[in-house]
Amino acid sequence: MADNRIYNFNAGPAALPLSVLEEIQDSFLDFRGSGMSITEVSHRSKWFDDVINDAVERIKRVLNLDDRFQVLFLQGGASMQFCMIPMNFLTEGKHADYVNTGTWSAKAIKEARIQGKTIQVVASSEDKNFSYIPENIAFSEGAAYVHVTSNNTIKGTQWAEFPDTGGVPLIADMSSDILSRTFDADKFGLFYAGAQKNMGPAGVCTVIVRDDFLKMVPENIPTMLKYSTFAAKNSMFNTPPCFAVYAVQLVLKWLEESVGGLEKMEALNREKAEMLYGVIDESGFYSGTAAQGSRSVMNVTFRLPDEDLEKSFIQKALENGFGGLKGHRSVGGCRASIYNPTPLKAIGALCDFMQAFERKNG
Amino acid sequence: MADNRIYNFNAGPAALPLSVLEEIQDSFLDFRGSGMSITEVSHRSKWFDDVINDAVERIKRVLNLDDRFQVLFLQGGASMQFCMIPMNFLTEGKHADYVNTGTWSAKAIKEARIQGKTIQVVASSEDKNFSYIPENIAFSEGAAYVHVTSNNTIKGTQWAEFPDTGGVPLIADMSSDILSRTFDADKFGLFYAGAQKNMGPAGVCTVIVRDDFLKMVPENIPTMLKYSTFAAKNSMFNTPPCFAVYAVQLVLKWLEESVGGLEKMEALNREKAEMLYGVIDESGFYSGTAAQGSRSVMNVTFRLPDEDLEKSFIQKALENGFGGLKGHRSVGGCRASIYNPTPLKAIGALCDFMQAFERKNG
Repeated sequence: MADNRIYNFNAGPAALPLSVLEEIQDSFLDFRGSGMSITEVSHRSKWFDDVINDAVERIKRVLNLDDRFQVLFLQGGASMQFCMIPMNFLTEGKHADYVNTGTWSAKAIKEARIQGKTIQVVASSEDKNFSYIPENIAFSEGAAYVHVTSNNTIKGTQWAEFPDTGGVPLIADMSSDILSRTFDADKFGLFYAGAQKNMGPAGVCTVIVRDDFLKMVPENIPTMLKYSTFAAKNSMFNTPPCFAVYAVQLVLKWLEESVGGLEKMEALNREKAEMLYGVIDESGFYSGTAAQGSRSVMNVTFRLPDEDLEKSFIQKALENGFGGLKGHRSVGGCRASIYNPTPLKAIGALCDFMQAFERKNG
Repeated sequence: MADNRIYNFNAGPAALPLSVLEEIQDSFLDFRGSGMSITEVSHRSKWFDDVINDAVERIKRVLNLDDRFQVLFLQGGASMQFCMIPMNFLTEGKHADYVNTGTWSAKAIKEARIQGKTIQVVASSEDKNFSYIPENIAFSEGAAYVHVTSNNTIKGTQWAEFPDTGGVPLIADMSSDILSRTFDADKFGLFYAGAQKNMGPAGVCTVIVRDDFLKMVPENIPTMLKYSTFAAKNSMFNTPPCFAVYAVQLVLKWLEESVGGLEKMEALNREKAEMLYGVIDESGFYSGTAAQGSRSVMNVTFRLPDEDLEKSFIQKALENGFGGLKGHRSVGGCRASIYNPTPLKAIGALCDFMQAFERKNG
């Protein structure tokens, strides 16, 4: 490992597996014998076909998806999905339910309303500053879908289990926890994730969509905003973000071949989160901000006794080689994002640092 | 130079300057002292701020843009612009003119019509298989804009000079010739370019928009489809495609500091094109497909006496280290794309190869 690399707890763009970065670096002037960089290879070449097809197959295998699901690579991040979802699926006479668990859910709701779509916010945790995931939700009759945010990066909450919607298909923004745990894809009509947390670099959004949802796409919307456009062309209606898709392929390869698959990844992620929450819960100094049953395995949010101590903590951490521990600018406090690529070693080192900081300042 | 690198004549994604690729490679594990890869750095960090701000300033300087213009980095390629332009600028009661010079113009026209916008195709070169750029166009009264495609990658044609629209602002798709030549930006309300030809890798689309056009953007369209969203947030309303923006920054630095600026780049591009068209015109074997006054300085399209010879030419070229010479799948024939990064040396080598192939097969 390069000695000058820091422990990276960024919320996204975030740490990537070192072996992935090294492979990109090593082959950057001559991609797989092409005599070109991956950034110079045509997306209509066999080299890129192999990349995108392998990425798709690995996602299907890792997430245990049957053939009803298609894996697409789009641009514009999750934010573009907020507008595309109602545009594609809430045609005349249809309505949908949304659950509001924080900033990103609220943005998804806003983009449906801007388009004049009929949606209902059936549950919200705004009453307690989005510190928990709502339970016992009364979903409305005959909704086209129920939209949830599976993990809330800013507030540090996560759906431990997805809700029982009584058969209505779920749509989920999984930007910050896709590939971190197993789940039953059967309940979903569509799920999506900006890559820049668990999957790769910024610049590509993975969308997984079921065939019955693809059939709902109307004809009269712009070509680049239709899921069916990308589904019909293996995500290559126009030039895809080739470099980002390539990096996603390598991250998936790492997940399967170095980590050993999704079950192992999930166990490791639980171990990492338990270590960190353990330090917080055992101390009278740090306090977690998310309700116990709603805690995120990916984003550990916590406070110190006062804001001056928080500033000093973040500063001292940085000096000791721990980056990205500042909470989101909208909420303050501290946050350690511990996505798939963050190694156990980094968590151990952070726990040691936190305990030492507490001894000195507690 | 790595010995195994080929001469890359790809139409896009295309060759990048070797020094740019080497700088990306060298700093890939530790970006400018951050202890992180550029793919791991937060877009809200000073590291990325420096990247995007420098890229914007360089574009403004190279293209000689005054302060009315804003430089934005969007996702979705030029294809997304085809839908965003009419959505943002053809509000109730407005209409626009389009010129059809080939595949990409036709797609722009299609996306305006899908949205039910009032547009008129005021000129087309379809009558001669898009082999020329129309002249003496009668533009309609009071149009909001006139849309043109400045260079036609597939057909190998290019506007030598932009048309006199009688004061109506131009909007241009400059995907395949931006930064290749000087032009007067004053005539433009907006111009845009997918990066993957002259500017960088696939995954980012540069949009340059004038302040009076930004003021025309309506409120009630999705946030991610409004130019004003990106203008208000320095292209960081949501996570931008950081790696692609970084590569664009380096390409601009190369253009200014290694090439010596846009005038020098333009002179070099003309020299390259003249060499290649010279070989074609002097031979009785190769024939250019674009009309003389409409020839592209970026994409040199040509045919051989028959399709078997073309196949053999492309194959032999590949064996000799010349990649990407096959014409677009929709038209056949041969095409050498000679964007900014293609060095004079590569053109010289290709000219020699073409003359040798003619001697053997002519």
